[in-house]
Amino acid sequence: MKSIFKTSNRNEKDFGFGKIASEENRVRLINRDGSFNVERKGLNFFTSLSLYHFLLDISWPKFFSLIAFGYVLMNLFFTSIYMVIGISAISGHDSSSFWELFANSFFFSVQTSSTIGFGHLLPGNLISNIVVTVESFVGLLSVAVITGLLFARLSKPNAKIIFSKNALISPYKDAKAFMFRIVNARENQLFELDGEVNLILQKIIDGKSQRTFHKLDLEISHLTFFPLSWTIVHPIDSHSPLYNFSEKDFIESDPEFYIFLKGVDDTFNQYVYTRSSYKMSEIIYGAKFESIFDLHKAGEKISIDISRLSHFKKVTLS
Amino acid sequence: MKSIFKTSNRNEKDFGFGKIASEENRVRLINRDGSFNVERKGLNFFTSLSLYHFLLDISWPKFFSLIAFGYVLMNLFFTSIYMVIGISAISGHDSSSFWELFANSFFFSVQTSSTIGFGHLLPGNLISNIVVTVESFVGLLSVAVITGLLFARLSKPNAKIIFSKNALISPYKDAKAFMFRIVNARENQLFELDGEVNLILQKIIDGKSQRTFHKLDLEISHLTFFPLSWTIVHPIDSHSPLYNFSEKDFIESDPEFYIFLKGVDDTFNQYVYTRSSYKMSEIIYGAKFESIFDLHKAGEKISIDISRLSHFKKVTLS
Amino acid sequence: MKSIFKTSNRNEKDFGFGKIASEENRVRLINRDGSFNVERKGLNFFTSLSLYHFLLDISWPKFFSLIAFGYVLMNLFFTSIYMVIGISAISGHDSSSFWELFANSFFFSVQTSSTIGFGHLLPGNLISNIVVTVESFVGLLSVAVITGLLFARLSKPNAKIIFSKNALISPYKDAKAFMFRIVNARENQLFELDGEVNLILQKIIDGKSQRTFHKLDLEISHLTFFPLSWTIVHPIDSHSPLYNFSEKDFIESDPEFYIFLKGVDDTFNQYVYTRSSYKMSEIIYGAKFESIFDLHKAGEKISIDISRLSHFKKVTLS
Amino acid sequence: MKSIFKTSNRNEKDFGFGKIASEENRVRLINRDGSFNVERKGLNFFTSLSLYHFLLDISWPKFFSLIAFGYVLMNLFFTSIYMVIGISAISGHDSSSFWELFANSFFFSVQTSSTIGFGHLLPGNLISNIVVTVESFVGLLSVAVITGLLFARLSKPNAKIIFSKNALISPYKDAKAFMFRIVNARENQLFELDGEVNLILQKIIDGKSQRTFHKLDLEISHLTFFPLSWTIVHPIDSHSPLYNFSEKDFIESDPEFYIFLKGVDDTFNQYVYTRSSYKMSEIIYGAKFESIFDLHKAGEKISIDISRLSHFKKVTLS
Repeated sequence: MKSIFKTSNRNEKDFGFGKIASEENRVRLINRDGSFNVERKGLNFFTSLSLYHFLLDISWPKFFSLIAFGYVLMNLFFTSIYMVIGISAISGHDSSSFWELFANSFFFSVQTSSTIGFGHLLPGNLISNIVVTVESFVGLLSVAVITGLLFARLSKPNAKIIFSKNALISPYKDAKAFMFRIVNARENQLFELDGEVNLILQKIIDGKSQRTFHKLDLEISHLTFFPLSWTIVHPIDSHSPLYNFSEKDFIESDPEFYIFLKGVDDTFNQYVYTRSSYKMSEIIYGAKFESIFDLHKAGEKISIDISRLSHFKKVTLS
Repeated sequence: MKSIFKTSNRNEKDFGFGKIASEENRVRLINRDGSFNVERKGLNFFTSLSLYHFLLDISWPKFFSLIAFGYVLMNLFFTSIYMVIGISAISGHDSSSFWELFANSFFFSVQTSSTIGFGHLLPGNLISNIVVTVESFVGLLSVAVITGLLFARLSKPNAKIIFSKNALISPYKDAKAFMFRIVNARENQLFELDGEVNLILQKIIDGKSQRTFHKLDLEISHLTFFPLSWTIVHPIDSHSPLYNFSEKDFIESDPEFYIFLKGVDDTFNQYVYTRSSYKMSEIIYGAKFESIFDLHKAGEKISIDISRLSHFKKVTLS
Repeated sequence: MKSIFKTSNRNEKDFGFGKIASEENRVRLINRDGSFNVERKGLNFFTSLSLYHFLLDISWPKFFSLIAFGYVLMNLFFTSIYMVIGISAISGHDSSSFWELFANSFFFSVQTSSTIGFGHLLPGNLISNIVVTVESFVGLLSVAVITGLLFARLSKPNAKIIFSKNALISPYKDAKAFMFRIVNARENQLFELDGEVNLILQKIIDGKSQRTFHKLDLEISHLTFFPLSWTIVHPIDSHSPLYNFSEKDFIESDPEFYIFLKGVDDTFNQYVYTRSSYKMSEIIYGAKFESIFDLHKAGEKISIDISRLSHFKKVTLS
Repeated sequence: MKSIFKTSNRNEKDFGFGKIASEENRVRLINRDGSFNVERKGLNFFTSLSLYHFLLDISWPKFFSLIAFGYVLMNLFFTSIYMVIGISAISGHDSSSFWELFANSFFFSVQTSSTIGFGHLLPGNLISNIVVTVESFVGLLSVAVITGLLFARLSKPNAKIIFSKNALISPYKDAKAFMFRIVNARENQLFELDGEVNLILQKIIDGKSQRTFHKLDLEISHLTFFPLSWTIVHPIDSHSPLYNFSEKDFIESDPEFYIFLKGVDDTFNQYVYTRSSYKMSEIIYGAKFESIFDLHKAGEKISIDISRLSHFKKVTLS
């Protein structure tokens, strides 16, 4: 089987974790959500500080909250400058207390930075006129920055593949197979879907527990289209590293399955990647998936019920 | 023939519809406009809700109407807040009736959210000043969101290939061929055009009607450039699943032809994909396309008349 | 030699112009600027109308002029509405003549659509308040559209390869070669440059002049980097369709060379494509390029003088 | 080993520098930061002038400074126009001195171009009303341009690979190897990382010093993921051009190693490219890298300390 990634003389046992991963036993390498279970330190703070990636990756509510917070902060900053300049900074009001001055300064700042400019509050002297010039520029620039960030967030490829909660060891032809099921959670289409499944096993080599890496053969590793669900199947035949494994063998070897999917999103025709993993605790030995199709419906459309994605029934394996 | 998509050990009979499609007889899988004839349900509402893809896919008139509707709605929302605050919320007016108050509140809201700020209507107290602060922020953010959406719509790859209304079974060399004709409806150029045609036939297997899937050989499956029209031809020779089919055989096997095209759009150098299909009712048995070229013109340019794309004349097949 | 484009069972004689091009003698197929010498008609006006591609492809001065024109037009449109409403539409002015009313309406419209809102001119009644609401929305939307268009223009891949004015038939090893020279006119880098040269010859076949298509072998068809110039060379050896051609043969066969280049622009890591062509009138029989390098400079940098790109000296071919 | 770049009949000795680079001895071709050590002249000023690439490539502080400078300049330009029109250009002020007029004109310009429009300063006559129309348009357009530029900067692929300060000649199996170490400085992930190492040696050929180009075999040239560090290793075996080189041979042949890396950035799923180089002065003969892993930690995560990227200890080579 060919890798979904172009390889040259790649070491089959290595897909980016190297020697250390083989020795650090029982550490999950890829979390179920596809993130890496890796900690990086020692980076210069400013080199690693990637405000941009942070602002792209946080959720929408957090993003809008942060922007709103920034808007208030910016106005408070200019408010304090107008207050330092004094009561004459802003004409058109008659503030006798600190809080009245604060309120008028703050609302004048809002009317300036947002470029509303009602005109009942006005810059009162030369210095506040200069501050208004700066604030209007900062206001315009902020709108530009927020627009840029918004579009960057909107144009990020955002495939969302749902994986079945469990992977199964199921009967398959005359033997067994490892299988799991996926579905596209988005309404947009995915094309040219490629799947790759890698396996890490704990083995006793020279009396020492070591990890071994295996790339698994799949029944089908490519789909031209993905309008329905896909059950990805690794047949446990004589070529499989899991050949003749009993349930006990499975538990002892503590297998981890790493899944890599690659497809083309048809909204922007961009490649999208998804990772996930199954550890032994998420694998059901002796089960098969129930149908996801609504077979009773004889209408014009093929119909699937995605809520049944993870449904399986227990079976006895020979 | 190689697939236009990189395949590994792909099952020739499967291009994403799987077993179920083989059993659900007589259901069209891909509609003429390229959409899938598939219904998906059971998805959590919020997971499948993709407002973004919706706003990208609707037509321009609908998009602008929705935005205008949103603009009015947002202003009505803030109008109602100003009205709840009461007559003192906005100074500069003298509203004696509900509708006068409503009108003044609404126009004050418009002048605030759009950041016009004429200044004859002014925030009249602390609470309305705070609401103005919020509204100015919402206004600025809305402009940013609309700008982001607009650009996302503009930068979407938008190939538009026109397919001839009918596919034809035409005389071809000493035998027959399945053929249809396409043209680029846009003024921009397409490069590196790849075509793939798949066929689904109804066959009686073991006394039961079943679907079989076939990938068809094409006379030419790749064009470097696409400045003119392209007649895509599947020769019905001894390698074809349609070999020796009579018109009666065609009708009985209820063939569906699925066409997948892939090319590079030269405006943004992005890959663009197009799908379409022909069912038997759209296939003319015994016809050939009329020329699309203006041959009588001896000028400097090669000239085609796209309105003749679907023109054919009936012929008798041997 | 492999094509720069993935091909399957492609007809070597066809790269998108088909049979018709072989028969329409002496028509240039690709112009020197890379555009196709093709006329398309019969398209429904609204289908082919691609305002978007038009706005992306015009020059910057034209683009800005069009936007300015649109800005004035939009304001004139709203001006006329305010004038139709009458003198009471706008309060704060005392216009006694048509032109005074026109000027005040126009400047009020500008102050509204640009969201300046000075406040000396104000909406004077309900209807003009509604028009102001619409105009503020149109103004905000226009800014969004212009921003989207601007960014679409800015993010368009814009490679600019300069081709030597002439292609040369030069001495090469023991024989001759067809060659031309290119350089990158931009300061950004191009990577993974692939070149392909196709040749069309007029031949007398069966007493009738016909075009034949040939893909030419190149000495080097790929560059990893392109920091300097590149002389693309087709050796005229026994595999070449031009083998043993005398100058007279060249003139009689009226050769056209079509050049296709593909590379990766390192600003956005996008593929960029360039086309060009040489007809016989642009080919010098018996000449070689002068060096483009500043060899006299022994400094730290390799230096080329791009103004010498097209310089050649005449030589006698054996 | 296959190149990371698709090659056809590429001359192994040539990767874009051609013959001249072989003759211009001892000139570094690629700088450590990946830029080319090449000077290009003779280009028409306006052809090479690429303000856009300039504005994309400068640092963020320079970018914002330039924009602020442009904002002030634009306002000064319109200020001068209002001053030329005279005192009646702007109503609402009572400027008795040049500087008062200047200040009022400047702040009126700011309030116009930023679309604040407080309203205490107003256009005073027809001409200044027309100038206000132009300035409002220029202001809106500037925001659009700045937004476009900002997003173009934000969406630029921006991989940042840190290379170990030195490359090492280390013990490797029974022999030696050339190696260096890299790490991803960004928090985002890189996929499908491909590495290519090319070597340029000075050799005495026919009594004349000449450069020879070599592509080096790598122990591993592809990583599926890159969450940790990667030590790229060229084993100096019998296939290596450095086979049996003593430290003296290394110094005499003045080797330059050019590194090209290509990967997929998972934020935008874009290809990113990185270049770097090592000259002899940056190579330690007889050393090996210290571990970058925090082995003492038995926690849940694999931990690396990037500050140790360049740490090595001296060893004696056999």
